[in-house]
Amino acid sequence: MKPNFSLRLRVFNLNCWDIPYLSKHRADRLKRLGDFLNLESFDLALLQEVWSEQDFQYLRQKLSLTYPDAHYFRSGIIGSGLCVFSRHPIQEIIQHVYTLNGYPYMVYHGDWFCGKAVGLLVLHLNGLVLNAYVTHLHAEYSRQKDIYRAHRVVQAWELAQFIHHTSKSADVVLLCGDLNMHPKDLGCCLLKEWTGLRDAYVETQDFKGSEDGCTMVPKNCYVSQQDLGPFPLGIRIDYVLYKAVSGFYIYCKTLKTTTGCDPHNGTPLSDHEALMATLYVKHSPPQEDPCPAPGPAERSALTSVLREAWTELGLGIAQARWWASFTGYVIVLGLFLLVSLCVLAAEEGAREVAILLWTPNVGLVLGAGAVYIFHMQEAKGLCRAQTELQHVLRREKATQGLDSEPHPAPLLTAGGGQS
Amino acid sequence: MKPNFSLRLRVFNLNCWDIPYLSKHRADRLKRLGDFLNLESFDLALLQEVWSEQDFQYLRQKLSLTYPDAHYFRSGIIGSGLCVFSRHPIQEIIQHVYTLNGYPYMVYHGDWFCGKAVGLLVLHLNGLVLNAYVTHLHAEYSRQKDIYRAHRVVQAWELAQFIHHTSKSADVVLLCGDLNMHPKDLGCCLLKEWTGLRDAYVETQDFKGSEDGCTMVPKNCYVSQQDLGPFPLGIRIDYVLYKAVSGFYIYCKTLKTTTGCDPHNGTPLSDHEALMATLYVKHSPPQEDPCPAPGPAERSALTSVLREAWTELGLGIAQARWWASFTGYVIVLGLFLLVSLCVLAAEEGAREVAILLWTPNVGLVLGAGAVYIFHMQEAKGLCRAQTELQHVLRREKATQGLDSEPHPAPLLTAGGGQS
Repeated sequence: MKPNFSLRLRVFNLNCWDIPYLSKHRADRLKRLGDFLNLESFDLALLQEVWSEQDFQYLRQKLSLTYPDAHYFRSGIIGSGLCVFSRHPIQEIIQHVYTLNGYPYMVYHGDWFCGKAVGLLVLHLNGLVLNAYVTHLHAEYSRQKDIYRAHRVVQAWELAQFIHHTSKSADVVLLCGDLNMHPKDLGCCLLKEWTGLRDAYVETQDFKGSEDGCTMVPKNCYVSQQDLGPFPLGIRIDYVLYKAVSGFYIYCKTLKTTTGCDPHNGTPLSDHEALMATLYVKHSPPQEDPCPAPGPAERSALTSVLREAWTELGLGIAQARWWASFTGYVIVLGLFLLVSLCVLAAEEGAREVAILLWTPNVGLVLGAGAVYIFHMQEAKGLCRAQTELQHVLRREKATQGLDSEPHPAPLLTAGGGQS
Repeated sequence: MKPNFSLRLRVFNLNCWDIPYLSKHRADRLKRLGDFLNLESFDLALLQEVWSEQDFQYLRQKLSLTYPDAHYFRSGIIGSGLCVFSRHPIQEIIQHVYTLNGYPYMVYHGDWFCGKAVGLLVLHLNGLVLNAYVTHLHAEYSRQKDIYRAHRVVQAWELAQFIHHTSKSADVVLLCGDLNMHPKDLGCCLLKEWTGLRDAYVETQDFKGSEDGCTMVPKNCYVSQQDLGPFPLGIRIDYVLYKAVSGFYIYCKTLKTTTGCDPHNGTPLSDHEALMATLYVKHSPPQEDPCPAPGPAERSALTSVLREAWTELGLGIAQARWWASFTGYVIVLGLFLLVSLCVLAAEEGAREVAILLWTPNVGLVLGAGAVYIFHMQEAKGLCRAQTELQHVLRREKATQGLDSEPHPAPLLTAGGGQS
């Protein structure tokens, strides 16, 4: 690699809102997206919410000349909705499906059926190893009463851990996707602090697009005020994040977003705005270390966010256990009723009623059993993430050599944790 | 690090057969295991089938002086059963839960409820980075009619991928565990070919223990002839595998197994035999490359096993889709019956029978729906792994620059795959 090595990387990210039968103007938007991607010829186009594999195949065919390599990340029952189109050969592929992703009985939210995931593509660009990640986290349906908050924190932690452990030999790390979190949200901070990824919107000197970099804006005709909740001016939940790992530095020269309408004309490409970043990767000047050892301020910020996440997961564990206990009681009650009905059926008087009620009661016991099992699994998943956070906190403490124990009581009791 | 660097690593691996209420002499075996581990003071003790977290806590307390660090890998509903005790501080922890792990309706097999997983521990030993993995794959209940074969191949592939992607900056990789596969089984070959891991039993010059290195032997009083199936003399399904990644080489000086009885006296520690390996890590001599680029023979072996796995997963996909179709028909039939019962209930004659049959029929539709969803997810998981295999096959072909297309027809059609 030459010493004056410089690599330009043009990246496109969009949550496509491509839901068969439900999304408006789907075929038209998909066609225009294909045309736009062909015209712009990005290095990488990372898409979310492409729920139909046929639509992916359509795009793949349409983009085959400009983007010779592509991948669709299958998972769950419906799929992850993630796919990627690349101008460069994809060397390696792996994906991680998040262990917690909502509740199967919340059918109308649907996230559980999707198998939300993070996909990793390894590219070799002029001798540089680029790890590009694409993801989509669980949606936030209510900011005031967010029953999925703990799940989203676990997803953010799993995402951060996946990136941390799979990018150790990469030169450059890129993460694009719909995180369904605002920039200051706990999961977002956890992700950035643990991985060291930087936010293109915050870092760039040259931003053009929607106000405050919002990626869901009221001007977009597919966005309702209900979607924006208490943020009528728009929300920023889609991101381009990056870092250089060793011997290189990376910066975002320009970042653009669409602004509620098609980049050229017509209706918007999606209910989300597209992000278009031009990144430059160069060799670090010898005197500069692109990954300096984190100082006390960084370590303190990490410790603080780890503790906050730890506490949040503790609340999630308590809730999951409450549901498991509740359904446990329902199972016991249902079994008691079944025995009572058997006794009743043996007598002459109420035999018909007893037989009639027997099957719904069996259904109740089985249904409660399924919900019990699900919440036991949820509690286990939350405990697991909490234990990992606790382990990092302990290692951080050992590194900092602090004398004072950080919140020893909750770390040792709640969640039955250890490291 | 000194040029004459040499590190001795003593490793213990055991599937503990620690199932509350079911395993014989559990408390006694656990106590003796703790005593033995304290006496021997291994660097790492990697255990499987510790299904009770209380038992882990018991061991943790008992071993706290000899093994100051420990971790229990939680997952699924019951847990992964995996835990580790380390004489050295554990720097980092992550785990991957296998996406396919049997069928929830096979309650008496139970694997689905366990959340089988692979756990990774990163240790820093005298400046050397050791990635130690511990795992336990789905059991093989019948060699002749193995309905879990495709699941085990996917697990082996996910394990191989997880190791491949998380060990790129490690100096030494160690994998211990119960793979539930014989050395020549497809999954085992896939794992070894894709990761480059070497088998301690095959490599060591100094082996002491059970015949052919078997880890389930008829002499063990907890092992029945049924457990051994068509291999009455024993089977080898537990492994110590290792490799050095760069600048180092690793070799197994001695490997021991227990031989169906306690290392000291009394009944065996488990129904599996324990593995005890003494490994040495040294700097590679300058003229030797510990990780030479794979030659044509290695590439050919890899391609061959990738193709075989691809075909195996194709069979699994066909089977999963058959079950999804079958349950789909049952759902349609159930819905038709529901409508018929509604019509019957509207008439006077058969009202009681119709009402009586309505609820079991709802149960049938819901049950079939659950099984349908499960097999759809199974097919998606198998397709995903198949697509990853196909991608590696394509990259291998590109690397080899071969002219002939390897099996182009099945690679392009079955599974609806792409890369």
